[in-house]
Amino acid sequence: MSQYRVLIDANDEKGLVHKISTIFFNKNLNILSNSEFVDKENNKFFMRSVVDGDTDKKALENSLQGTLPASANIKIIEPKKKNIIIMATKELHALGDILIRHESGELEANILAVVSNYDKLESLVSKFDIPYIAISHENLEREEHEKKIIETIDSYEDIDYIVLAKYMRILTPGFVEHYKDKIINIHHSFLPAFIGANPYKQAYDRGVKIIGATSHFVNNDLDEGPIISQEVKHVDHAYGWKDMQRSGRDVEKIVLSRALKLALEDRIFVYANKTVIF
Amino acid sequence: MSQYRVLIDANDEKGLVHKISTIFFNKNLNILSNSEFVDKENNKFFMRSVVDGDTDKKALENSLQGTLPASANIKIIEPKKKNIIIMATKELHALGDILIRHESGELEANILAVVSNYDKLESLVSKFDIPYIAISHENLEREEHEKKIIETIDSYEDIDYIVLAKYMRILTPGFVEHYKDKIINIHHSFLPAFIGANPYKQAYDRGVKIIGATSHFVNNDLDEGPIISQEVKHVDHAYGWKDMQRSGRDVEKIVLSRALKLALEDRIFVYANKTVIF
Amino acid sequence: MSQYRVLIDANDEKGLVHKISTIFFNKNLNILSNSEFVDKENNKFFMRSVVDGDTDKKALENSLQGTLPASANIKIIEPKKKNIIIMATKELHALGDILIRHESGELEANILAVVSNYDKLESLVSKFDIPYIAISHENLEREEHEKKIIETIDSYEDIDYIVLAKYMRILTPGFVEHYKDKIINIHHSFLPAFIGANPYKQAYDRGVKIIGATSHFVNNDLDEGPIISQEVKHVDHAYGWKDMQRSGRDVEKIVLSRALKLALEDRIFVYANKTVIF
Amino acid sequence: MSQYRVLIDANDEKGLVHKISTIFFNKNLNILSNSEFVDKENNKFFMRSVVDGDTDKKALENSLQGTLPASANIKIIEPKKKNIIIMATKELHALGDILIRHESGELEANILAVVSNYDKLESLVSKFDIPYIAISHENLEREEHEKKIIETIDSYEDIDYIVLAKYMRILTPGFVEHYKDKIINIHHSFLPAFIGANPYKQAYDRGVKIIGATSHFVNNDLDEGPIISQEVKHVDHAYGWKDMQRSGRDVEKIVLSRALKLALEDRIFVYANKTVIF
Repeated sequence: MSQYRVLIDANDEKGLVHKISTIFFNKNLNILSNSEFVDKENNKFFMRSVVDGDTDKKALENSLQGTLPASANIKIIEPKKKNIIIMATKELHALGDILIRHESGELEANILAVVSNYDKLESLVSKFDIPYIAISHENLEREEHEKKIIETIDSYEDIDYIVLAKYMRILTPGFVEHYKDKIINIHHSFLPAFIGANPYKQAYDRGVKIIGATSHFVNNDLDEGPIISQEVKHVDHAYGWKDMQRSGRDVEKIVLSRALKLALEDRIFVYANKTVIF
Repeated sequence: MSQYRVLIDANDEKGLVHKISTIFFNKNLNILSNSEFVDKENNKFFMRSVVDGDTDKKALENSLQGTLPASANIKIIEPKKKNIIIMATKELHALGDILIRHESGELEANILAVVSNYDKLESLVSKFDIPYIAISHENLEREEHEKKIIETIDSYEDIDYIVLAKYMRILTPGFVEHYKDKIINIHHSFLPAFIGANPYKQAYDRGVKIIGATSHFVNNDLDEGPIISQEVKHVDHAYGWKDMQRSGRDVEKIVLSRALKLALEDRIFVYANKTVIF
Repeated sequence: MSQYRVLIDANDEKGLVHKISTIFFNKNLNILSNSEFVDKENNKFFMRSVVDGDTDKKALENSLQGTLPASANIKIIEPKKKNIIIMATKELHALGDILIRHESGELEANILAVVSNYDKLESLVSKFDIPYIAISHENLEREEHEKKIIETIDSYEDIDYIVLAKYMRILTPGFVEHYKDKIINIHHSFLPAFIGANPYKQAYDRGVKIIGATSHFVNNDLDEGPIISQEVKHVDHAYGWKDMQRSGRDVEKIVLSRALKLALEDRIFVYANKTVIF
Repeated sequence: MSQYRVLIDANDEKGLVHKISTIFFNKNLNILSNSEFVDKENNKFFMRSVVDGDTDKKALENSLQGTLPASANIKIIEPKKKNIIIMATKELHALGDILIRHESGELEANILAVVSNYDKLESLVSKFDIPYIAISHENLEREEHEKKIIETIDSYEDIDYIVLAKYMRILTPGFVEHYKDKIINIHHSFLPAFIGANPYKQAYDRGVKIIGATSHFVNNDLDEGPIISQEVKHVDHAYGWKDMQRSGRDVEKIVLSRALKLALEDRIFVYANKTVIF
């Protein structure tokens, strides 16, 4: 008995559910959960099914590919722990939240290493027997610094995701391209409000009554990648920007961990710079 | 071209989606939206599809009944305005919210009448050219009073829902049975906390930091019917119980109108004293 | 026995609470509620007290002015209904919410008139015996159109607030200046995200997971005035922009009515393009 | 220069703010923040001020006691780390959240020890160089077990708070009395809904659409102590009770840590089985 997560997206057309469910039925697969969505505007079909049965993965893939239109992207994934690298700078709340969840067994992930541009978090990370690699950016051009980081990360194999747990440096397009679709970031504002540096200060100066955090995939435009999850928190005039920052950390860590969990469980489709989440 | 909302629940078994989607495909129906859920604990399958095409309703029903297991409940509904009666007492916020939505054309409903045990709301309702029938409960046994209400309501035909928009009297089992599965209530607490009279006073006395409201179908046990929607609002020590009451009205009206909208759009399955909402 | 709302702001210095409370004490005033806040960054003190007693308003004002530093702004307000004008365009949810609250007696306000650039809302407003004045903008320069509106509004006396209940036209600096600090707007986004036209379409295109609404005072920069209140609502990939719009209306109306209520109860201080709200 | 947190509650009477602020003024104290509340129903006055200056603590206390009515409770607290003991059972999310916050320096606390009825959490706690004491309840009467725990806890001095971070055993009145007003618990429901065992199962069975968590002081009646903080999370029909449990953990840990922080900062007044929180 194997369990598969089947993710299909395709240009929408009549009969897709019929075709897919017929294959599942003929292969005697049991549907454990099933979600569909059609984006009418873009005429795009999305489906995520969790199935189990005796069927061979390759055979299932062949059947789906033989039946579905050429536009279909088909992923058949066997649930297993994914490999992640965490990048952080000095703050420990988001990193700490992931470490504790990992310790509890809640995450389907192996944390291969934590990479930071400072050594400040080493004492925390080392408690958990996870490699901590500090690569200082001092006296280095941005590209040089990133080159060292890439060498470090690429010394590990089969990286599924790179999680930016308050990594406070801007990434170059080259870095982002190198780990295309694999980088998950937490931005400490309710995007697209307050893009860029010190969003809590910006929020304070604007006098907002709600602050927030946004987890998103990273693409080449700063803070403009596909949004995975957002959450907010009411504030009032009594919050200085450091109060907002302190208080916002609880939102940040929950939103980042939630996004990571969705990614690890293969629940996210990305298209048109947006996410469909089942 | 007709549009149908197809609602199916059945004991779960392998192949249900396959069977249903095959019928839709063979009848050349276009699936506009599709939602499924399997309650593993109760082995129960739920599906709501919106389809359009040239197919005859009766023919579609026959095909589905001929193919699906005997346990299947199949409803095929053509979207049209449903007939509702609103019952209220003295407060006008929840009633007013429905009247304004009705005026805006947002609700798929004909409001046949508003029935109240007081005449206080008549001036509001009459503005909207909707019949207002005050049936005082004074000097009447509860059953006598309800008998008069039932006579009034039953003078209208094809009632789909009775909406209790802060109707502040307890209904007898006879009344509830007479309009089985048709009565939607708003309870001014986050049920099951604070069942019964004056929940804001109860909430205040308990010192809660959040108040709420719950819309639910009414069954014979007071405030224990299937929950449709809930919403909450933070409060603090500065809220007296009347502040909670005032402030809670915004939650009440939104939650009741939301539940009504879900019902009018045939999005609610009820089973095991719970709701599945698509 | 008179009741006063005493609003004081001043440059902060030691002893302000002492001085003010001593005056209240010496005048035998009872403090019904009292809120203070010091903005450390701007060294600014804010205080709102509700007091009652036999004291003459003028005498109280004189005492406070004689004692407090020159920087102090002192307002002593006797609670009474304020005069408001509502401006709207075609949507009725925000306007309707205010009308229902007004009907319920919940608002400390006289609605003098509703002014719109269309006649679409007349049938609703006329139900409530409130003057409805449609002033079409067609074939008019913006300034000409506003001139007509100003003439209409100014035919009423003692306007306290102008409430933009989804008035969908940009106001000129001249109009804003004419009603300085009196215009309350609802913007249908979580500002400062999605300034300008069709924020729901912008939000949809960006793929946000939360939508919101912001009530604010209007100043000359579009959607950049001091924020009074904000609220949000979770959405997901299944929301098209019209679903966001429909769903956002519930947030908009609650947030606008909340802001209006705060203004009517004299709970808002404005400074540095922000609000302090007690 | 010393900083003091001054907490005063008293039967309300005219002039309390005047009297207190005059003492602060005469002693040349700077008011850093100030919050007041009068509970009209119970005629009770509450005030929390943070002041700094050169004044001697004892002298300030004497002045206040000499001036305020006999009903006044006056606490003058110098900010410093408080001593806490954490009790847990097997779940590590709430404990882990406190450990990470402690590591970050965010908590004004010394964690003296973690006491558990299992050894499961030892590997986590030992990473942080905090004593872990497992005291199994097996084969012990409840009182015997608690006696051992009390002996352990009382081997530490000056305990300020005992934090029940998902300690899953009911405490006897004797234990609660022994640490009167010092025990903070997290209950995994939106109290007073779902008192007692397995609240997520109860919530699932009731079909609620929102789950929550409640932090509260413990008194002798199970889950009925004064509520400090509550938070909620929307769920839907797709959540089985274990999904609710998993998902609820994020709410639990945030709500418990928030309550702990409020206690450590001396922001909580308890009276009439409620809390006033500044």
